[in-house]
Amino acid sequence: MNQLERLIRSLSRLPGVGRKSAARIAHYLLKADSAFVTRLAEEIGTLKERIHPCPVCGNFTEDELCSVCSDPRRDGTQICVVEEPQDVATIESTGEYNGLFHVLGGAINPMNGVGPSDLSIDKLVKRASEGTVKEIIIATNPTVEGDTTALYLQNILKERPIEVSRLASGLPVGGDLEYADKLTLARSFRGRTKL
Amino acid sequence: MNQLERLIRSLSRLPGVGRKSAARIAHYLLKADSAFVTRLAEEIGTLKERIHPCPVCGNFTEDELCSVCSDPRRDGTQICVVEEPQDVATIESTGEYNGLFHVLGGAINPMNGVGPSDLSIDKLVKRASEGTVKEIIIATNPTVEGDTTALYLQNILKERPIEVSRLASGLPVGGDLEYADKLTLARSFRGRTKL
Repeated sequence: MNQLERLIRSLSRLPGVGRKSAARIAHYLLKADSAFVTRLAEEIGTLKERIHPCPVCGNFTEDELCSVCSDPRRDGTQICVVEEPQDVATIESTGEYNGLFHVLGGAINPMNGVGPSDLSIDKLVKRASEGTVKEIIIATNPTVEGDTTALYLQNILKERPIEVSRLASGLPVGGDLEYADKLTLARSFRGRTKL
Repeated sequence: MNQLERLIRSLSRLPGVGRKSAARIAHYLLKADSAFVTRLAEEIGTLKERIHPCPVCGNFTEDELCSVCSDPRRDGTQICVVEEPQDVATIESTGEYNGLFHVLGGAINPMNGVGPSDLSIDKLVKRASEGTVKEIIIATNPTVEGDTTALYLQNILKERPIEVSRLASGLPVGGDLEYADKLTLARSFRGRTKL
């Protein structure tokens, strides 16, 4: 197997990249300017040594603490709980939230053998017990696993003087009733807001 | 800008990879096993030094000649003319063709300033004049640029005792008349075959 074929195989392991896209990317790289290709290789090669999880919240960072945990302007009374580090970036991009984060590292999924002890839940409970936190916003995915995890967290946190909330689930903005699936529609009924 | 953000920006320059896919790939790499990530970085980094155009046909190769030109079982009387090196791989994957190739390096496109002299046409004419070649199959894309290039080649080659043909254009197999665009449908009429 030659170098080009090897690269195409590696690239097709990436999420969202099939065999055809991989071939297209490989040929693009062959034509692209060398400086860009070298930089890309360097960025991929050094990614894992430079980036590590933030010891407080589990978000990715190059520094000792992540950019959210080390920012004194963030509201330390709120913690938004997410499944994965990329969820932090997604929520940050809305500009809607100014509190802290906590990355669980996944969701409870008995089928795949992921139980509560595999997630960063103890650490969350410890952070919640330190007295500063007033609200925990659960932002796990609106899936069976995310719902299970939310329920588990709600149970574990209910003894404490902390408000626990969950992101609203319902119709996507700009969406169309006709194309909404039944579950989403049912949830948007249950969570309807008074006008 | 941090390392993760830099990688995401570089990845989103790749064809077919938008900002969201780039973020998804970057986070996948952060979680992927180190051996794979190191290998991918190495494969990208050494791509351009290891792979170069075949001096005969212009296809990509790691060796002196490409795998087609160096294969004695290939039929030297046919040359299939394509725009880009990836077209060679696409045609090879059909298993339909056993002749040689010639990569033009693009198509005539006056709007983008690409004229005949920017393409590897002189080399093709030289190969065609060596006496072995009996048929030249033009497999440029069925676009305005590909058609222009095919016409140009046809004119340049018509004085020689060589058959010049072009890949059939028409309805894609498994397609539906209803969804065919007018131009494709018109071409499939003109190129209809007797049963």
